[in-house]
Amino acid sequence: MLKDKNQQSTSLSELGEFGLIKHLTKNFGINCESTEKGVGDDAAVMEFSDKQVLVTTDLLVEGVHFDLSYMPLKHLGYKAVMVNLSDVYAMNGTATQITVSIAISNRFPLEAIEELYAGIQHACEKYNVDLVGGDTTSSTKGMLISITAIGEAKKEDVVYRNGAKPNDLLVVTGDLGSAYLGLQVLEREKQVFQSNPNSQPDLDQYSYLVERQLKPEARKDVVQLLKELEVKPSSMIDISDGLSSEIIHLCTQSEVGCDLYEDKIPLDPQMISTCEEFKIDSTTIALSGGEDYELLFTVSQEDFPKIKANPNFTIIGHMTPKNEGMYLVTRANQKIELVAQGWNSLNKE
Amino acid sequence: MLKDKNQQSTSLSELGEFGLIKHLTKNFGINCESTEKGVGDDAAVMEFSDKQVLVTTDLLVEGVHFDLSYMPLKHLGYKAVMVNLSDVYAMNGTATQITVSIAISNRFPLEAIEELYAGIQHACEKYNVDLVGGDTTSSTKGMLISITAIGEAKKEDVVYRNGAKPNDLLVVTGDLGSAYLGLQVLEREKQVFQSNPNSQPDLDQYSYLVERQLKPEARKDVVQLLKELEVKPSSMIDISDGLSSEIIHLCTQSEVGCDLYEDKIPLDPQMISTCEEFKIDSTTIALSGGEDYELLFTVSQEDFPKIKANPNFTIIGHMTPKNEGMYLVTRANQKIELVAQGWNSLNKE
Repeated sequence: MLKDKNQQSTSLSELGEFGLIKHLTKNFGINCESTEKGVGDDAAVMEFSDKQVLVTTDLLVEGVHFDLSYMPLKHLGYKAVMVNLSDVYAMNGTATQITVSIAISNRFPLEAIEELYAGIQHACEKYNVDLVGGDTTSSTKGMLISITAIGEAKKEDVVYRNGAKPNDLLVVTGDLGSAYLGLQVLEREKQVFQSNPNSQPDLDQYSYLVERQLKPEARKDVVQLLKELEVKPSSMIDISDGLSSEIIHLCTQSEVGCDLYEDKIPLDPQMISTCEEFKIDSTTIALSGGEDYELLFTVSQEDFPKIKANPNFTIIGHMTPKNEGMYLVTRANQKIELVAQGWNSLNKE
Repeated sequence: MLKDKNQQSTSLSELGEFGLIKHLTKNFGINCESTEKGVGDDAAVMEFSDKQVLVTTDLLVEGVHFDLSYMPLKHLGYKAVMVNLSDVYAMNGTATQITVSIAISNRFPLEAIEELYAGIQHACEKYNVDLVGGDTTSSTKGMLISITAIGEAKKEDVVYRNGAKPNDLLVVTGDLGSAYLGLQVLEREKQVFQSNPNSQPDLDQYSYLVERQLKPEARKDVVQLLKELEVKPSSMIDISDGLSSEIIHLCTQSEVGCDLYEDKIPLDPQMISTCEEFKIDSTTIALSGGEDYELLFTVSQEDFPKIKANPNFTIIGHMTPKNEGMYLVTRANQKIELVAQGWNSLNKE
């Protein structure tokens, strides 16, 4: 679907709104059993029989959530889907459908939107999700993507944020902080490029960080793995705003406290070396950097044997009674109160 | 919830994203049986048991779909919900939940967003719909609202666009063209105001038109009425882009033709007199003006006795075999081919 932009440039208004939706969605198949009717009527129709239905939505704004000067449109489409699927997995559910609405200024030719949809399609195919609806409209400035993801889960499988108990283990998947650091690397290269357009960025030593920023993967595999291990978390959330902020959500909603151990927080070696290069503290980045899209969950101590040897999971702390508070236990064995300094798009102008 | 803007002005960044969502949604109740968990987790959770699930989404952009110089924010919130519920009713379903995402520039104080949500809340209460999720973020310019509506229907009750048969009657609810004309009136008043800020607009003689534009109602009552009358339409769509464009959708998807009778199209007297004043053809406005949010449907001739005397319905034509084409039969008994000149936001810059 990717085309050479030098060869073709089709104005969006040539197609019109209905033509555009039809054109963009024609290569999307319907694969989920629950999808009865996808794009093309007033509403999509789904059937979930005995399952509960999960719905989550996210809005991505150019200049706030993404920068097209280093975010290829295909990656943007892929990432926009991941952001939403991640929320469904954080409920211990299976994502089944998405709707995609975009607002775009006329500066984008059809071929650009095709790239965006190629990324969306790739995500749909890889995660077995059907595109069932959406809206395309013009914007007065820039691009905006609004995605709603729909998922399903058996009632007894749904995991909320509010089920953590004192003594539960606090577990995280993957490693943290790399996506945020990838963004810092890309921002730096952008500034270098702006002052010297002939410079060739060499991102080899930051490849993992950049990939975490540009092409995150939602942890569908973890939901499957937990099922296989017969572990049902007592609470779960996805890490979109930084570890610290997400822990506070779990604690607040579960009415518990927490001891988080600094030396247990999983960090990638590339992330550590780049933090050294940038002269920033890696723990701070892991706690406050956003967009990791890993899962953070609590399990009862009884489940410890099932998860302890698994390379997908890192036990980073445990829950405590509410009145004991929420703390980071540092390498020096100091206790520092956790504060939410999560990536907050409203404060980021 | 409405506050005097002269007295209070709270910056959005004071609250932060989580604080803002919590603040805005605190007065919304949960009333639908199908809502298991609303705002506050990674995803909302719903249970529809033996019902099918309907999902539809719409994106409204400031400067493209609405103009805040004459659209009060409370009305905008209300209308944004109506636009989406209308799509659920057009499937012959019951709307049950919505998610609301907004992108807003920092020029809006908290009190403005509260007004917007007051309108959303009013719509939710009146139509018995639960707000179950959403996203708030900043925009670099203007305001943007993305709403997803979720609904339910028994499988045997769902009405698609593709079920119309030749000889079926074509029926419309309410009257057409007034919303579009209301917009023209408001645009004219805006220009008068801009050239003379001391002028006082007198909109009394246009009150119906302006109300149709600023405070449309989705036809939940019609879905209920059809049920009571034991009429299941063979096809249905809501009129958001103008009668002509919607008829073409029904015909194309049902693979039929149509004869639409000009003298049967229901017009409000205020709409007719204003068309005369503006020197525009009322039929053209009814065919191409958007945002009526009435329902257009087809029924088999057998159902004629059930709907003929009902003031909510007007029979405006009948379906024909596909090869006979789609025509407007004028008052002078001429046949003119129907063309889609619907309100197209992509061509409207």
